[in-house]
Amino acid sequence: MSAGFARTPPPPYWVVTFTSQRNAREVDAYADAAERMFALASTQPGFLGMESVRDADGFGITLSYWADEASIAAWREHAEHRAIREYGRAQWYDHFEVRVAKVERAYSRRADA
Amino acid sequence: MSAGFARTPPPPYWVVTFTSQRNAREVDAYADAAERMFALASTQPGFLGMESVRDADGFGITLSYWADEASIAAWREHAEHRAIREYGRAQWYDHFEVRVAKVERAYSRRADA
Repeated sequence: MSAGFARTPPPPYWVVTFTSQRNAREVDAYADAAERMFALASTQPGFLGMESVRDADGFGITLSYWADEASIAAWREHAEHRAIREYGRAQWYDHFEVRVAKVERAYSRRADA
Repeated sequence: MSAGFARTPPPPYWVVTFTSQRNAREVDAYADAAERMFALASTQPGFLGMESVRDADGFGITLSYWADEASIAAWREHAEHRAIREYGRAQWYDHFEVRVAKVERAYSRRADA
């Protein structure tokens, strides 16, 4: 499901950080759900992009970007997202940390060649 | 250099997100520098923790947590950090994105068993 780099607009906007330790359960169901949640999030009002990486030990960080707090709240209340999220949080993670933050500044660089 | 989960205080505090694509250059020098920068950051005033993950393709996300904007600014100006950062940004990454954000809310869960 990796989408590489998000293409976000100039700040201000919002980021939700999700740091997590996967357990070993339901590898296929988890992968399907992650792909589905990414596709579904991408259609939500205010969604600006997502970046996600997980290492071979199951430790991962996902960043999702949103236009404002209202779009984060609407996504949190989305029925299908709620159902999958509640199942997933009970079944798939040993530990997770969620943070909601307002992006104030951003900068980037790509190599020239 | 993975430190697992950071133990951050209740919000508000700040997060610097660093999303990057490593190139294949200087694997050992990069690893040494990353470890040194983590150790050095950990001694800075206002440093609250760091979470970092990179996959086998070299795509990575690092989150560093700070008490306030002043501590982020002081770390940015730290002489050894500046030198390594400028060298590293020119040599080690195909692309990176940095975002500075104020954490407003946070929640977490650990599995009971």
